Amino acid sequence: MSTSKGSAAKGGGGKKKEVKKETKLGMAYRKDDNFGEWYSEVVVNSEMIEYYDISGCYILRPWAMEIWELMKEFFDAEIKKLKLKPYYFPLFVTENVLQKEKDHIEGFAPEVAWVTKSGKSDLEAPIAIRPTSETVMYPYFSKWIRSHRDLPLRCNQWCNVVRWEFSNPTPFIRSREFLWQEGHTAFANKEEADEEVLQILELYRRIYEEFLAVPVSKGRKSEVEKFAGGLYTTSVEAFIPNTGRGIQGATSHCLGQNFAKMFDITFENEKGVREMVWQNSWAYTTRSIGVMVMTHGDDKGLVLPPKVAPIQVGSILTGK
Amino acid sequence: MSTSKGSAAKGGGGKKKEVKKETKLGMAYRKDDNFGEWYSEVVVNSEMIEYYDISGCYILRPWAMEIWELMKEFFDAEIKKLKLKPYYFPLFVTENVLQKEKDHIEGFAPEVAWVTKSGKSDLEAPIAIRPTSETVMYPYFSKWIRSHRDLPLRCNQWCNVVRWEFSNPTPFIRSREFLWQEGHTAFANKEEADEEVLQILELYRRIYEEFLAVPVSKGRKSEVEKFAGGLYTTSVEAFIPNTGRGIQGATSHCLGQNFAKMFDITFENEKGVREMVWQNSWAYTTRSIGVMVMTHGDDKGLVLPPKVAPIQVGSILTGK
Repeated sequence: MSTSKGSAAKGGGGKKKEVKKETKLGMAYRKDDNFGEWYSEVVVNSEMIEYYDISGCYILRPWAMEIWELMKEFFDAEIKKLKLKPYYFPLFVTENVLQKEKDHIEGFAPEVAWVTKSGKSDLEAPIAIRPTSETVMYPYFSKWIRSHRDLPLRCNQWCNVVRWEFSNPTPFIRSREFLWQEGHTAFANKEEADEEVLQILELYRRIYEEFLAVPVSKGRKSEVEKFAGGLYTTSVEAFIPNTGRGIQGATSHCLGQNFAKMFDITFENEKGVREMVWQNSWAYTTRSIGVMVMTHGDDKGLVLPPKVAPIQVGSILTGK
Repeated sequence: MSTSKGSAAKGGGGKKKEVKKETKLGMAYRKDDNFGEWYSEVVVNSEMIEYYDISGCYILRPWAMEIWELMKEFFDAEIKKLKLKPYYFPLFVTENVLQKEKDHIEGFAPEVAWVTKSGKSDLEAPIAIRPTSETVMYPYFSKWIRSHRDLPLRCNQWCNVVRWEFSNPTPFIRSREFLWQEGHTAFANKEEADEEVLQILELYRRIYEEFLAVPVSKGRKSEVEKFAGGLYTTSVEAFIPNTGRGIQGATSHCLGQNFAKMFDITFENEKGVREMVWQNSWAYTTRSIGVMVMTHGDDKGLVLPPKVAPIQVGSILTGK
């Protein structure tokens, strides 16, 4: 792959501090010697990422976006088979709505970016940028769901979200803005919700294993690690030998009835009795591309698995 | 089409103020009598739009998103034939970069939403949310373009943008956040740039005429109406008989060399001489869906042209 021309770190976009030379073609770091620098170098030199002048924000270049588009095409077709419908909910949330589910907002509060001005005017009240859309969507679930005939309600959106606070920005892996899909669904009973959590988890396994050739373990998170405000969280976890640590690949949460209670999402069942819905939410993000790079990249740079390589190269053995 | 259940205007999401009754199935307004209320009623009752609790922000529901996806599929395939590559640039812009091209920022300044806090902390400096991405992208064009061999550079992204200030929020037509594609390209000479402006304009005409069955006129905007900071603007314009006015459908701008000058985007030509690039930017948005509704809707509600109707109905004449 061709290499980056010029400075990869104008304005200090995170980890990568030094300025690259015009003539720099190869890799300066070895994967085993300095994994962090090696990783930054791979994603920049392969032209997947350009560092941006706001720390923790990155430019996704065609080598990354083409992979994202391939995974999106696969996943979107699969969830449409499960009757998921496309939605787009706003980027902005009022403080009031955001704080309605207390455990949930506690999990996100330090990471929320707030808009307080438009042009030169102060807004009447600060408005949050979605760190995830549970509280954006569920007031409308409450409005749309009346009877058991409205269930299941299954929404998905492809969008950007923002989580501002963290210590160690890393391209794809930990960025302040990232791209994802977020599925949000409501069911009449726990069994249907449980079933979907695992259906989606299996799709996440397939994205990692079939598209990115990254082996993952499926499992359930412990109570302390579960999604804030939810009932239980399942995830696919990859392993990065160089760090000796697991890395969360994607999560599929059963929210139980916590949000239904907070946002009053109820339906009249077939016997005419009012019940609370059971909900799930699940997401995978552009982080998956970073996990792939960490898994397959080597001292010469990026290595792409066949299903996501934009250029396919084959070798033909010829007679001696 | 089915009708909306319950309040369409919780919290006052713009034009639509009154609360709908549970039993309300038909249309209360006639297109010729009260076009504004009729329009709000159509987009809500057809379940394309749900009003949101932040004025000027709207929820796009499946009837709208499925149309957007169809148009996106068509347009994306066409621009990929023109060698456009997919990118994703950040949602955020620093004040410094945003203000670099003065005419440009003058055109947008009153509409810019500013993030000033994360969690409970003030940011060191306010950060703008992109109203459009010229100033986000072009510092990197400057870095990526060195020689005539790097040209043309052709980027496209599908994303959300935010323009906060305006008087009359209207679903699809004038909303504070909207979805669009934005193409940004750089060429070695004016002829190539001019040619692309019209190629893209023709694609916009096809979206309106072939997909949305909305007739449009192609033309060049006057000096006062052109894009701030650009050389000239072309657009497709539709006509809404009920308002007696034209409505801008999509724009394809030649930026000339203004941004190249401001952001120092130069290349070494084949004779080894440094020149400034010629640039274009062009976009169409979810507004197109609103123009379609205004054109085809009638007193019974939404009317969809065949190419974007998710359900196709045919009539078969049978013998008497």
